[in-house]
Amino acid sequence: MIFHSIDDVYSAADRIKPFIHRTPILSSKSINEIVGADLFFKCENFQKVGAFKFRGASNAVQSLSNEEIKKGVATHSSGNHAQALALAAKIRGTKAYIVMPSNSTNVKIEAVKGYCAEIIFCEPTLEARESTLEEVVKKTGATFIHPYNNFNVISGQGTSALELINDVSSLDYIITPVGGGGLLSGTLTTVSDLSPSTRVIAAEPEGADDAYRSLIENRIIPMVKPKTICEGLLTSLGELTFEIIRNHIYKIITVSDDAVISAMRLIWERMKIIVEPSSAITLGILLENKIDLKGSKIGIILSGGNVDLEKLPWTIK
Amino acid sequence: MIFHSIDDVYSAADRIKPFIHRTPILSSKSINEIVGADLFFKCENFQKVGAFKFRGASNAVQSLSNEEIKKGVATHSSGNHAQALALAAKIRGTKAYIVMPSNSTNVKIEAVKGYCAEIIFCEPTLEARESTLEEVVKKTGATFIHPYNNFNVISGQGTSALELINDVSSLDYIITPVGGGGLLSGTLTTVSDLSPSTRVIAAEPEGADDAYRSLIENRIIPMVKPKTICEGLLTSLGELTFEIIRNHIYKIITVSDDAVISAMRLIWERMKIIVEPSSAITLGILLENKIDLKGSKIGIILSGGNVDLEKLPWTIK
Repeated sequence: MIFHSIDDVYSAADRIKPFIHRTPILSSKSINEIVGADLFFKCENFQKVGAFKFRGASNAVQSLSNEEIKKGVATHSSGNHAQALALAAKIRGTKAYIVMPSNSTNVKIEAVKGYCAEIIFCEPTLEARESTLEEVVKKTGATFIHPYNNFNVISGQGTSALELINDVSSLDYIITPVGGGGLLSGTLTTVSDLSPSTRVIAAEPEGADDAYRSLIENRIIPMVKPKTICEGLLTSLGELTFEIIRNHIYKIITVSDDAVISAMRLIWERMKIIVEPSSAITLGILLENKIDLKGSKIGIILSGGNVDLEKLPWTIK
Repeated sequence: MIFHSIDDVYSAADRIKPFIHRTPILSSKSINEIVGADLFFKCENFQKVGAFKFRGASNAVQSLSNEEIKKGVATHSSGNHAQALALAAKIRGTKAYIVMPSNSTNVKIEAVKGYCAEIIFCEPTLEARESTLEEVVKKTGATFIHPYNNFNVISGQGTSALELINDVSSLDYIITPVGGGGLLSGTLTTVSDLSPSTRVIAAEPEGADDAYRSLIENRIIPMVKPKTICEGLLTSLGELTFEIIRNHIYKIITVSDDAVISAMRLIWERMKIIVEPSSAITLGILLENKIDLKGSKIGIILSGGNVDLEKLPWTIK
């Protein structure tokens, strides 16, 4: 039995308030007309480091004791969590050790370096990442901050939904993406307590549908060989996130990459904001019409906006 | 002598208030650090039709009498003014006749059609555009709404600066782009009256520097063969806009296309918002350092966000 409650999310909100952006909520009349529903987009693409991940990383780093924090924090990631942890550590005046696969793109390496983290490269396999991280932690005494399977991280991610339901009342649904489940489980803890009539739906890529299958089989199915443009949603659920998700989720709906690309382009063109595929997948659900949400009032968490501007999905055929 | 005053801008603001978005003002800590100044971006890319042009077009259309409006409005344009006028006419329940060059892109044609305007195609020359428009006006009795050389349009464009200086006090500078000068002259009327200590700077493409040269020679130099990626800034000044500009401007500064592209990319990457080259040129001034504005508090009007997402300047070499 897992004890994760709204009080953890409230504590996180207080703890990270000085460091995060309270992100805006935007609407688009023309997208509402296209999907036949009232959408409220919570713009975590405007969050620091360009993604909601900064909320969880900040809460985890700020929760450490003065003694613990001296030796720094560590993680393995090539994505938004790496940047988020690097900045959160910099703000607390400590060091972040980031294990990254040797084939990471320059853009990602530079972004992490820009926040003064120390990068340790390893072979691009999960085994190498984990063993390298273990060595780093052993050598430095740094605290490992898992990207999602960590209660402080989950609580931090839940603060986005907390702001959303404070700003927009009586939502029928909230849609988030699901990868490792940090954002989704934080959202579920928040919404199931404060707005139990709001149903939470998760959007998952068809080509990385481990969470969908995990729910059906009621056990964690690890993701093997994912195939999707949603780079942020390739990971498997953790035992903490899975437990919260299976207790509170309304539905997980899988979305094709084609619908993700259409949704991403629609958001860019109509709203003039930049979101990454892993964010746009939420609107993809509505474009594919796999569930009828017409006439509903829907909160959508746009998780991030870190995109390689040289390689947009609609220019790569 | 031209009589255009802050009262015209106030009237415009009242008139168009029900129809426009009050656009947000965004800041970016990391861009501030790069340029060494405090920037306040007025986001007209979030305006309806994706550009400030909707302010002027709305004011012009809403200013017409019930008798005049019956016969519709007309213009020649392949850009943002075409969409803006089409939507403004639709809102007032009248018809817009838009003369467009036959080589206009499908994206632009579809956008105008989407607002129910009637499109009349012509040869892609200025002569053909003007003569075709004249025929349309003669035949239909529609009122011609010039994209910038029209006081009602200028007054409407001035409402963006009005919102900006109401929201952010004590700006040292305001930077706008200059093409035909509608946005610039509306801004000048507003700022010179309400915030005379704020200096207005205009950004113009090096390859379309007719306004810069017009100021030096103190007469309107028409733009011949412009060469720049700033598609929205190819036009020459009009006699109304020129008169206001030469009376109130602090400086016009020309910017290279390279700086425009760098500025555009910086805004996309750091702010996660979509702006067109003709908007990004304002930040281009600061990247090229042609004038020392370090330590200043600067308002920047981001004029629009209509970009062909298939052809981004940094992917075209």
